[in-house]
Amino acid sequence: MENLDQTLLERFREGDRRSLSRLLTRIENRDPSVPEILDTLYPRTGDAWRLGVTGPPGAGKSTLVNRLVGSYRKKELPVGVIAFDPTSPFTGGALLGDRVRMETVSQDPGVFIRSMATRGHLGGLSVGVDEACDLMDAFGKERIIIETVGVGQSELEVANSADTTIVVLVPQSGDAIQAMKAGLMEIADLYILNKCDRDGADHAFRELVSTVSLKAPEDGWRPPVLRTVAEKGEGLDEVLKAIQEHRQHIIDSGSLEERRHARIAAKTKRFVEDGIRKKLWNEDRNTRRVKGLASASSPYELGEQLIDDFYEEIRHERR
Amino acid sequence: MENLDQTLLERFREGDRRSLSRLLTRIENRDPSVPEILDTLYPRTGDAWRLGVTGPPGAGKSTLVNRLVGSYRKKELPVGVIAFDPTSPFTGGALLGDRVRMETVSQDPGVFIRSMATRGHLGGLSVGVDEACDLMDAFGKERIIIETVGVGQSELEVANSADTTIVVLVPQSGDAIQAMKAGLMEIADLYILNKCDRDGADHAFRELVSTVSLKAPEDGWRPPVLRTVAEKGEGLDEVLKAIQEHRQHIIDSGSLEERRHARIAAKTKRFVEDGIRKKLWNEDRNTRRVKGLASASSPYELGEQLIDDFYEEIRHERR
Repeated sequence: MENLDQTLLERFREGDRRSLSRLLTRIENRDPSVPEILDTLYPRTGDAWRLGVTGPPGAGKSTLVNRLVGSYRKKELPVGVIAFDPTSPFTGGALLGDRVRMETVSQDPGVFIRSMATRGHLGGLSVGVDEACDLMDAFGKERIIIETVGVGQSELEVANSADTTIVVLVPQSGDAIQAMKAGLMEIADLYILNKCDRDGADHAFRELVSTVSLKAPEDGWRPPVLRTVAEKGEGLDEVLKAIQEHRQHIIDSGSLEERRHARIAAKTKRFVEDGIRKKLWNEDRNTRRVKGLASASSPYELGEQLIDDFYEEIRHERR
Repeated sequence: MENLDQTLLERFREGDRRSLSRLLTRIENRDPSVPEILDTLYPRTGDAWRLGVTGPPGAGKSTLVNRLVGSYRKKELPVGVIAFDPTSPFTGGALLGDRVRMETVSQDPGVFIRSMATRGHLGGLSVGVDEACDLMDAFGKERIIIETVGVGQSELEVANSADTTIVVLVPQSGDAIQAMKAGLMEIADLYILNKCDRDGADHAFRELVSTVSLKAPEDGWRPPVLRTVAEKGEGLDEVLKAIQEHRQHIIDSGSLEERRHARIAAKTKRFVEDGIRKKLWNEDRNTRRVKGLASASSPYELGEQLIDDFYEEIRHERR
């Protein structure tokens, strides 16, 4: 790597926030230097606990995340936040209001907040979310909270990047069933029914508990259902306790190791396929692909031609 | 292809529903014979109009789709339905109730209904949705309706497979803003505010209209906002009219051709990358990938090793 990068990495290791920020930007821009940088920092990763906070829009995810950050800071744990919600107060959005309160945490040097864009309008998490977590991990963050936009693929995808996945719902009839349909039951380690000062909270709670109870526990963990009013900070202690219990459980059961191995395998897969894709879709082949059927009778015949062409190119390379 | 496939294809061409069904199953199972089959049938495709129906759970998508099917059948148009919603009455689900009414359309030989599984718990459309549409198209369906589960990636992804994308919402405060957050505004060719017999429908309608009006029209098309009570069939004629207008508009503006070219390019890309992936992740390399860091210090170093290994394998193949 060039000297610039070396200096950047030194500053990063010294805890310079601007360097963290610049490296995160490189991840977002898929800068070619990223793999080597992450490779270098890789030994420093593995200590952070990664929390995914997901659930439908309007469930109060940002407010809850804000509370969690506050609680962790009281314990003097360095916290990183990656927010995908363009309307999240963390990311400067205004739709949800309460930005002011957020600023109290966002001005704390022990907290690093980064917003990332969702992938296209498909709403998937940015490709770099694991890498961004690794970077914050290497930076010394002990708690990393990933807040999804709560729609599109990101809502569920976050579970692949988190050690503990929290699904936030609100008292609303049929919400539990919708969550089930949305596949949230598959990923939840912990359910939070937020805004429990609303009418119908008790009914919604019972509905959620009974829906959750339908699902057999995985590796002996039955996701608890907790009630909060994040706005007022009510129920937060129970949430922290449950997160701690889940953490202990997956450490003891060995499923944390499984999750992390799966994450490494997935990361390797992405890295390999991205690398090959970059070589595959060079300007020439891409043009031929997009021009479509000029050269072939069907997408499948065209595809065969492009595959053969790619392999031929590799064969003709000097070893 | 083996004789079996030939017979199967003949029967398919003769309009045998069981053959269509069997070929759809092959698509879902990613059977190796699929590309060749689709390649053979490709000349028969291109006539069907593909409608995507998306929107949050509980918006009444299935009921609306049911009504659309009924209307098209009155015009004696052959209709295909691909439903991703596991709870859709079309797919035998019961959560939403009204299965009985669905059976009236599902027993009509001019209607072919197929349910497909969403991709994993990420809720993406099945990889084969375009291919399934092509198959129904080649079978002679003139209208193909794709109903999403309304959550996860599928909610937006459907736009890539549809000629006209219909976003169904219900009168609910903030629904328009949530739709905006969800990225639905990016893909809607047509908005339907369903269940307009509910309280607050007028307010929700105005809110939706004003939200929609914020977005500049694309290639001269401003997505209309229509009110329906699909349950009672109210507003359906306006919907059919708007679909027809959108169809005419994108034919005239040439953006239909663009959409279809983009679809072919995407299909080719998937086909090529799937083919290469199949060769790439052979048992050996996959094991090394999943075993993770046994052989390397980081996922990136491991990845480099696997890429080199893959290219070496190709170089050593006999031409």
